Amino acid sequence: MSGIGEGCEPGVFISFEGCDCSGKSTQIARLVNRLEGRGLDIVVTREPGGTPFGEKVRDLLLAVESPDRTILSEVFLYAAARAELVTEVIQPALDRGCVVITERYSDSTWVYQGYAGGVSLSSIEQVNDIATGGLEPDLTLIFDITAPLIIEKRFEGKKKDKIESRSEDYHQKVREGYRELAKRFPHRAVIIDAGADVSEVESQVWKEVSNILSKKGYDLNSCM
Amino acid sequence: MSGIGEGCEPGVFISFEGCDCSGKSTQIARLVNRLEGRGLDIVVTREPGGTPFGEKVRDLLLAVESPDRTILSEVFLYAAARAELVTEVIQPALDRGCVVITERYSDSTWVYQGYAGGVSLSSIEQVNDIATGGLEPDLTLIFDITAPLIIEKRFEGKKKDKIESRSEDYHQKVREGYRELAKRFPHRAVIIDAGADVSEVESQVWKEVSNILSKKGYDLNSCM
Repeated sequence: MSGIGEGCEPGVFISFEGCDCSGKSTQIARLVNRLEGRGLDIVVTREPGGTPFGEKVRDLLLAVESPDRTILSEVFLYAAARAELVTEVIQPALDRGCVVITERYSDSTWVYQGYAGGVSLSSIEQVNDIATGGLEPDLTLIFDITAPLIIEKRFEGKKKDKIESRSEDYHQKVREGYRELAKRFPHRAVIIDAGADVSEVESQVWKEVSNILSKKGYDLNSCM
Repeated sequence: MSGIGEGCEPGVFISFEGCDCSGKSTQIARLVNRLEGRGLDIVVTREPGGTPFGEKVRDLLLAVESPDRTILSEVFLYAAARAELVTEVIQPALDRGCVVITERYSDSTWVYQGYAGGVSLSSIEQVNDIATGGLEPDLTLIFDITAPLIIEKRFEGKKKDKIESRSEDYHQKVREGYRELAKRFPHRAVIIDAGADVSEVESQVWKEVSNILSKKGYDLNSCM
């Protein structure tokens, strides 16, 4: 991943959001593949985690054997990992002019612990704002799949982590939460039909990403 | 620790604060000893920790081998442990009419990560407020010792944790922070001269505790 092509503006921040098993990781890999040939600096990360400290917090959050805790405590644990990730990885990469792609970010807390978990959304927005220093993605791709597809994918035998093990109702609420989020932040959030064929999803993602790169001043042709 | 004596009002919340090695644990033990004979229900806890989840967070915060992290991330980790402690231990105990004594609470974050650590005090106050649901102690005893005494105690060969290992300047700033805190919250914060003889410190603590218990409607004679 070499330097930025001439005419490209520095720093674009893209988050992938959505239910578990909706294909975010697969599509991030495909997007990176498309971007890599274009001379862009790309940084891919994930939440919770992405730093040595954040990965420890991830273990504490997701390990099935981790002690029970209130949803409010989870909000703060995610915020701890997020603050570290923004300071150590995301902001420095944006300052260097990279395209930063993250699997999950503040919106996950808004949806999972807030909309679906019952913690007040205004509290979550305050905590997110402090943890990120107000840094929002330029583009948020929300991977949306129907409840039957979620259930089918969730019974494919994959070992579930502590959040994934919650009830189907909770996960249905998560889906609704993401749709609400798209209405609340229309300037950056776009719903992707993640139930479509994988190549079709890739095309939807590429359409949105190339659009935001153009808006931010990147000439994808000159970047090639 | 049996039921509350006749005439006693439910729920008193007392926090012990101050620099490391200032004698808080010793004096909590002595205070509990004094209170136990008086028919009061007493709950003693500590931060970070006090719940199975909080103790895991404590390990992550204090273990010397724990990965480096920003001070802001620490704020959120402490808040995670605190939210759990308030919901699972402190608030239920106060609702049952107990005298709750905690070694460290929100003020520690205000001083260590805020005043001494550089995170904005207003951010810390917002986070504390969300984590505790606004629950403040009725009485905060700030154990104050001079810098030479801190240094002497810190060189007694005790193995230092990750926070204790920070520079002397940082710990001097912590002391100043606690003195500022006492000015900011005069309705509940009292400075204790923790450099005095241990029995003299015990008397100072008892004076303040018996005072707040009387104010809250406890008749310590009828409680005996």
